Amino acid sequence: MDPAALTVDLNADLGEGFGVWRLTDDEGLLDVVTSANVACGFHAGDPSTMRRVCEAAAARGVSVGAHVAYRDLAGFGRRFVDVAPDELHDDVVYQLAALVGTAASVGARVRYVKPHGALYNAVVHHEEQAAAVVRAVAAVDASLPLVGLPGSAVLRLAGQAGLATVTEAFADRAYTAQGTLVSRRLPGAVLTDVATVVARCVAMATGRPVADVDGAPLQVSARSLCVHGDTPGAVGTARAVRAGLEAAGVRVAAFA
Amino acid sequence: MDPAALTVDLNADLGEGFGVWRLTDDEGLLDVVTSANVACGFHAGDPSTMRRVCEAAAARGVSVGAHVAYRDLAGFGRRFVDVAPDELHDDVVYQLAALVGTAASVGARVRYVKPHGALYNAVVHHEEQAAAVVRAVAAVDASLPLVGLPGSAVLRLAGQAGLATVTEAFADRAYTAQGTLVSRRLPGAVLTDVATVVARCVAMATGRPVADVDGAPLQVSARSLCVHGDTPGAVGTARAVRAGLEAAGVRVAAFA
Amino acid sequence: MDPAALTVDLNADLGEGFGVWRLTDDEGLLDVVTSANVACGFHAGDPSTMRRVCEAAAARGVSVGAHVAYRDLAGFGRRFVDVAPDELHDDVVYQLAALVGTAASVGARVRYVKPHGALYNAVVHHEEQAAAVVRAVAAVDASLPLVGLPGSAVLRLAGQAGLATVTEAFADRAYTAQGTLVSRRLPGAVLTDVATVVARCVAMATGRPVADVDGAPLQVSARSLCVHGDTPGAVGTARAVRAGLEAAGVRVAAFA
Amino acid sequence: MDPAALTVDLNADLGEGFGVWRLTDDEGLLDVVTSANVACGFHAGDPSTMRRVCEAAAARGVSVGAHVAYRDLAGFGRRFVDVAPDELHDDVVYQLAALVGTAASVGARVRYVKPHGALYNAVVHHEEQAAAVVRAVAAVDASLPLVGLPGSAVLRLAGQAGLATVTEAFADRAYTAQGTLVSRRLPGAVLTDVATVVARCVAMATGRPVADVDGAPLQVSARSLCVHGDTPGAVGTARAVRAGLEAAGVRVAAFA
Repeated sequence: MDPAALTVDLNADLGEGFGVWRLTDDEGLLDVVTSANVACGFHAGDPSTMRRVCEAAAARGVSVGAHVAYRDLAGFGRRFVDVAPDELHDDVVYQLAALVGTAASVGARVRYVKPHGALYNAVVHHEEQAAAVVRAVAAVDASLPLVGLPGSAVLRLAGQAGLATVTEAFADRAYTAQGTLVSRRLPGAVLTDVATVVARCVAMATGRPVADVDGAPLQVSARSLCVHGDTPGAVGTARAVRAGLEAAGVRVAAFA
Repeated sequence: MDPAALTVDLNADLGEGFGVWRLTDDEGLLDVVTSANVACGFHAGDPSTMRRVCEAAAARGVSVGAHVAYRDLAGFGRRFVDVAPDELHDDVVYQLAALVGTAASVGARVRYVKPHGALYNAVVHHEEQAAAVVRAVAAVDASLPLVGLPGSAVLRLAGQAGLATVTEAFADRAYTAQGTLVSRRLPGAVLTDVATVVARCVAMATGRPVADVDGAPLQVSARSLCVHGDTPGAVGTARAVRAGLEAAGVRVAAFA
Repeated sequence: MDPAALTVDLNADLGEGFGVWRLTDDEGLLDVVTSANVACGFHAGDPSTMRRVCEAAAARGVSVGAHVAYRDLAGFGRRFVDVAPDELHDDVVYQLAALVGTAASVGARVRYVKPHGALYNAVVHHEEQAAAVVRAVAAVDASLPLVGLPGSAVLRLAGQAGLATVTEAFADRAYTAQGTLVSRRLPGAVLTDVATVVARCVAMATGRPVADVDGAPLQVSARSLCVHGDTPGAVGTARAVRAGLEAAGVRVAAFA
Repeated sequence: MDPAALTVDLNADLGEGFGVWRLTDDEGLLDVVTSANVACGFHAGDPSTMRRVCEAAAARGVSVGAHVAYRDLAGFGRRFVDVAPDELHDDVVYQLAALVGTAASVGARVRYVKPHGALYNAVVHHEEQAAAVVRAVAAVDASLPLVGLPGSAVLRLAGQAGLATVTEAFADRAYTAQGTLVSRRLPGAVLTDVATVVARCVAMATGRPVADVDGAPLQVSARSLCVHGDTPGAVGTARAVRAGLEAAGVRVAAFA
């Protein structure tokens, strides 16, 4: 086992409210995770929520990342949109820039970029959209790493463009035999048993295989583990994951 | 006459389209003006339009400013919104940050901030909203000047906060005896005779009075003159204003 | 005491989610109230939420009303917008029409109109906006009653235009001596003690005075009582109010 | 040649503005066409524009149709959105209902439904989305015909569901050998030579083939011809098409 694998980042999607609406227990999760993926206004995240999450993350030393998405409030960014690559580029620049300046206004700093929802899934294989995201990040700040699925087009293109990349695994999502996520529209896509989730996280962080959706062993190695914030009991699950990792001798620390 | 008054900036509201819609002849106006007030997405200005205007402004050496507004696409930012000051602060941070980063991504730089439409009029007298705008600009970049109406609350508060301020007059708008703008909902609010507009601009730039809405002489001095971009013949009017100013010995140059 | 006062309607604002976000326990409240004010998409209420609430209301025999608002998702319709009366008219027609058709598509029927949030408060005194709302309702369906504050401009104008009107009181809101609502921005605006709320509702439904914000007796008589859905324990409070009313011999029934 | 083919409907997409923005010369086109596809607010079409177009159409006896679309103002409904069928159903119900009520408020009546842009193209082959559109129309008013491409899934499913269907051809769009539209992203997708456009319309209305994108003869028969409103010279082209049809002995009349 690679000793370097004994450090892992714990990230969560935060600030996923809009106006009067809330989705995630931002403060509760910020007490547990080491990286906060902050919605930038296109799928969620009004300016006040963005500012508050940046403040709360800075106060706890949690790393802030830009959670960029399709422009789709009504669909929460979970629906593929066949946006032209040039427009997607500009949309990502806008969202990233808005968060960079919002964070700076409260003394925080954006340290990475992670696509959200349907965009995250699209740039696993959609070369043009993946390239547009990579170009956008490079145009705003080429020192920002991109977080994505191991083997994805977006990480490959980011690497070719000279961006740092960070591989990610999901604490509570089922995987196909190919190492991609089982669609949320399918049953069993989201794991809810906390003990199972913890055990999988420990396995992924220590280089051991987990069971894919068919029960076969699958090697999933990642520098960062994503715990979901928008499920009931999210904070409790995140705490259990962190405790389980630390009990297994894994150091939990931000990558950036 | 103050020789310093013989330099004036010419600004126009640009990038006021959204998606497929266009309002202003951005390229045509950028050939004439010295400062471009760029819509930031809340009243107009999708990310691609913002990027294109920044590129075109940079290519011509035109100064880029953030034209921040109420969140009101349907009303084009022309309707007063009784937004809470803290939310307005965050909305301005977001818009300004988005343009700063978009501009930087194409090698341009935001050099000032100007409120748009109903927000522009509100911060003439609305102390809380004016203070919110000032705090937002200071939080993002305290070196950015604020453009506004002479005597407005926003310029007074900006000065008290240590921000630079730039006074502005309107080439084609009627003024009340108090030096405020006649509401667009009233007849005669917008002047359309080009010769009149040019003559008023020359008067304002050289320290001579213009006629207020009742015909009485009114002293309007300003460091920047706003020519409108969203009226028919806007480019022609702007060209005539610039030519008139230069023929009168006034140097047309950006303030920033 | 007027025996007719011994019947009261219980209404609640429902369907106040948008996309992935939820605010109100729609099913829980529909088991208690007799009228459902359904958000129509401008301050909340995506089409799927609207359809679901209409279905659930129809299944329980709960009366459906159109909860029309300013176009302001980010502000949840709680911010005054200085929209031109003609545009407000068209916005209300659009929202009301959308709900009428959505309700009809699942076998339900819209039976009244109630302005939401800042629009509700504005049309208490803003004559032009009140008139625009009245004209809009009359243009879509002149048989629909308008729900509003006793003494408000909108109810007066509605009556003059031949529309039926329904007076409303608020179960959990503090009143000024003038019988208007204490602004949500002030402390004590929302009452949270369930016993107090129940006692006030029984008093209002049986013709006895309640204490205004300063403790003085205030006569508040209304055909409908509004219980809020967007507060913690909303369903429990609504149940307690209904039980208290029925225990006091008040029949709880829809007005429409 | 079928004498019935000697009557054709002329439709255009109208009301495609939003707020301050305009795209189409609605009044000019309404003087020429027999059917007006009115945007319903999701890709374009604010409530005031919708009301004005309904009034203007009613004044001229032009048939009003609901131009329903994906919820995508920024993309003008021209980008495929992978919306879940149930949500698409509700979105179509909402848009159609809003236009039905808006039209009724000014004495007009919605007489048909036509999907817009990317939704139009999707329901040619996307069975689930096509079925959702059909169910939505049937739920609001099963007497409304659906307008679409000959051979499309949406027309087949509409027919199976008992809805009337209307086949449509495009005056100024290039066709593939399969009778589908050449994508707007490809060169030559939109024909701009007026004489060519007129000649093709006359051919299509009188049962003669037109040239496909490769020059091969293609039989395109349709009950309605679409002339575009969002191109320069749109009104002139529409007039020429109508004059050409009438000169060829074709009666131009609404189908509904």
